[in-house]
Amino acid sequence: MSTVPPAIADAYDPERFRADGKRLVDALADQLTAWQRGDGPVLPYRAPADARAAWALGDIGPTAARGDLVADLARFTAASTALANPRCMGHQVAPPLPGAALAELASAFVNNGMAVYDMGPAAVPVELAVLDWMCARLGLPAGATGVLTSGGSLGTLTALLAMRQARAGFDAWRAGANGGPPLAVVTSTDAHYAIARGVRVLGMGDAGVIAAPVDGHHRLTPDAVVRALATAGDRHVLGVVCAASSTATGAFDPLDELADLCAERGLWLHVDAAHGGGLALSPRHAGKLRGIGRADSVVWDAHKLLMMPALVTAVLFKRGGDAYAAFAQKASYLFESGAPEDTWWDLGSRHFECTKRAMAVELWATLRAHGEGWFGAVVDRQLELAQALAAKIAAAPDFELALPPECNIVCFRPRGDGIDMRELRRRVIEDGRVYITGTELAGSYWLRCTLMNPLTEPADLDAMLDVIRALCRA
Amino acid sequence: MSTVPPAIADAYDPERFRADGKRLVDALADQLTAWQRGDGPVLPYRAPADARAAWALGDIGPTAARGDLVADLARFTAASTALANPRCMGHQVAPPLPGAALAELASAFVNNGMAVYDMGPAAVPVELAVLDWMCARLGLPAGATGVLTSGGSLGTLTALLAMRQARAGFDAWRAGANGGPPLAVVTSTDAHYAIARGVRVLGMGDAGVIAAPVDGHHRLTPDAVVRALATAGDRHVLGVVCAASSTATGAFDPLDELADLCAERGLWLHVDAAHGGGLALSPRHAGKLRGIGRADSVVWDAHKLLMMPALVTAVLFKRGGDAYAAFAQKASYLFESGAPEDTWWDLGSRHFECTKRAMAVELWATLRAHGEGWFGAVVDRQLELAQALAAKIAAAPDFELALPPECNIVCFRPRGDGIDMRELRRRVIEDGRVYITGTELAGSYWLRCTLMNPLTEPADLDAMLDVIRALCRA
Repeated sequence: MSTVPPAIADAYDPERFRADGKRLVDALADQLTAWQRGDGPVLPYRAPADARAAWALGDIGPTAARGDLVADLARFTAASTALANPRCMGHQVAPPLPGAALAELASAFVNNGMAVYDMGPAAVPVELAVLDWMCARLGLPAGATGVLTSGGSLGTLTALLAMRQARAGFDAWRAGANGGPPLAVVTSTDAHYAIARGVRVLGMGDAGVIAAPVDGHHRLTPDAVVRALATAGDRHVLGVVCAASSTATGAFDPLDELADLCAERGLWLHVDAAHGGGLALSPRHAGKLRGIGRADSVVWDAHKLLMMPALVTAVLFKRGGDAYAAFAQKASYLFESGAPEDTWWDLGSRHFECTKRAMAVELWATLRAHGEGWFGAVVDRQLELAQALAAKIAAAPDFELALPPECNIVCFRPRGDGIDMRELRRRVIEDGRVYITGTELAGSYWLRCTLMNPLTEPADLDAMLDVIRALCRA
Repeated sequence: MSTVPPAIADAYDPERFRADGKRLVDALADQLTAWQRGDGPVLPYRAPADARAAWALGDIGPTAARGDLVADLARFTAASTALANPRCMGHQVAPPLPGAALAELASAFVNNGMAVYDMGPAAVPVELAVLDWMCARLGLPAGATGVLTSGGSLGTLTALLAMRQARAGFDAWRAGANGGPPLAVVTSTDAHYAIARGVRVLGMGDAGVIAAPVDGHHRLTPDAVVRALATAGDRHVLGVVCAASSTATGAFDPLDELADLCAERGLWLHVDAAHGGGLALSPRHAGKLRGIGRADSVVWDAHKLLMMPALVTAVLFKRGGDAYAAFAQKASYLFESGAPEDTWWDLGSRHFECTKRAMAVELWATLRAHGEGWFGAVVDRQLELAQALAAKIAAAPDFELALPPECNIVCFRPRGDGIDMRELRRRVIEDGRVYITGTELAGSYWLRCTLMNPLTEPADLDAMLDVIRALCRA
């Protein structure tokens, strides 16, 4: 005779899950069909205050009518930005591989927390398998390893912590930022804001970032780094943070030359390959990452070019032990005694998070289902689309291209005096037929497309430009 | 005529998703049935090295046979720790509400990144609705708000950043940790390791944590804080970090009295309610949180007592503006101009992450489906089970109870000389019939159960004790 209250048992009823799950899968499959056909807006825009009122929780008290979970989720889905719509070409977020979304369902269902091995006896080895594969694809040496963590910002913070611990010249973890000279990293003026943010989180302040100007191709050159180092004064420079590719323009820094410089100067080399790491899977484009295997640390987001749902970020270390130094700590309710390296299966001793989502199975299962060549083909497709868009813009007398794209990011704008580009971008958002972003380059605002959807056709690129033309006229 | 390579189109085929999705839902529903019946081990233990070999990726090259995604995911699920098994009573991780796992599928499927409003026009208002509800349930005043973020450690770091910025007496974000006197926080010797870790990430070093001893009930008292403050020396104390409840024992610090002391001394009060925040939903137990509405910041994990899959962490601020101060930064490809408070809908200006998973819809949809009373009933059930287990232990001559449980965490051990408790716990893990954890209290190791599964029956508690008895004899 069960002592479980009936309402609790009912919510956990496997048959309820089975029925709701199948209804949800049907709703999502129908929605995906509609998105791929281009039905409906890419961005179902509402003014934020209206949206807030519309999505209020409503009455959830004891006498309220109960919501229909599946109907609510279908409504949520339909009201979201349609990354799977071929005219979605905004941020560096993937229209997720549908099989990877199913893997997330399995992962959420088991909810294995992964700080220690017995919290995820399948999730931990699956993560290690994915990490081994990623290290190998980047050409990192034997002994390299890392962790998966919740997003590129946290991956960057983890790499900065390891860099600080390895290169400060004092035990910054235990002594604090006051324990030695002021610390700094060199990066480029185009670096992602996660780097400047991470440096300030670490207590290194504004002076902790020495931003070297990029060259005409938006790349951080060794010469620029040398000039930046000369301005360091009493600051102790830990290392160089470069990009492959950069967020604003998709430019690839010359990693091999930067690795030479860092080796010569004893500096840590961190590569922000959150976006561009995926090029390692494309025989045609992997050369843009030449030298990445020489980095001390790399961040690579699988939720960008590898088409995973966010967040699946790898932070990889050339010397696997570097990851431990930053987090050497005792917590008896989690970690048993012994050196952390002796319990390599307890991932919590080398990631910032405690409870961590099992986030490797998405990539593990889809790599097995599609083969790694599939992922390279997607990268090729994305870069081809960017070239196609750049060619259309270069051929159009009413548009100008900011620079030839090296990756799948295209910065451009309509020609013409008196067009307020921020206002134009706002109108594109509210119009909703296409989704693009914008960025500032050398103080000037440009529109920006990221070609993330491999189902985008050349005709969709034309349609996007036509929407902008129409909004310029209006 | 499509230019999309057929293998890419095939992987994105909605009908493939529909068929795979339904097969997966069937497999998961069957697995849930088996788990709830107690079929199979709670922890399907394998030696880590064996598991690593077994879960290697295998051949994923061009000529490899392709894996079956659904079969792989079913295999992964079956090899995971079975939180839904009624004899799972280990860490503070929930057997997730099945409907919440479905919400994660919808969330992964739309993959709306949420740094800015147009990346998540439904996800953002849904998050705001959940945050409003959480603030109200804790009794935080009008004007309180916060963000959801990826886990309690990141939530704690976010709160510490806001505390540092508000109370350092100098601009620690811009000037760095060197810009003023050394900084510290007071917490208890029982505090979660995320607090000590966060302090060191921030560059405050070992001296940045002043650990006050807990009393006989494992609580941090105002007297202990006063004594700790007297030891601060030249360190500037930012605030007090207390627990509701603590990780090791589930003890609740006296929040109201600590709030009085903090008000008197001008200290920031942060409450780590990652675990215990859920008690706010139980009329029977909410009193244990008395005073929480006076905190300057609170961390509350919905993936603990609210039965969400990890990670759904709220970090809440009494004054909503405090969240912005820690992260005031420019990134033109994301944020448009204007004061961040004027664009409250762009959540990225107040969370550490850039791309962020849409993690509110799980709670939003299940609150609407079950009503908030359901969540309170689950909390009541968990605390009842803990009382039942404590009573069984107190009545058993061969076991001893560390302390009477205040929450759903029970620390105990078998009596008897010569039992190595760590070795015993290791044997429980490898045995796999039940899942429990262990912790050190005042230098001595205890076994530890967290009663997270509302489907656990009193007979399962007896069975767990019997497994331990059997392993002690063996």
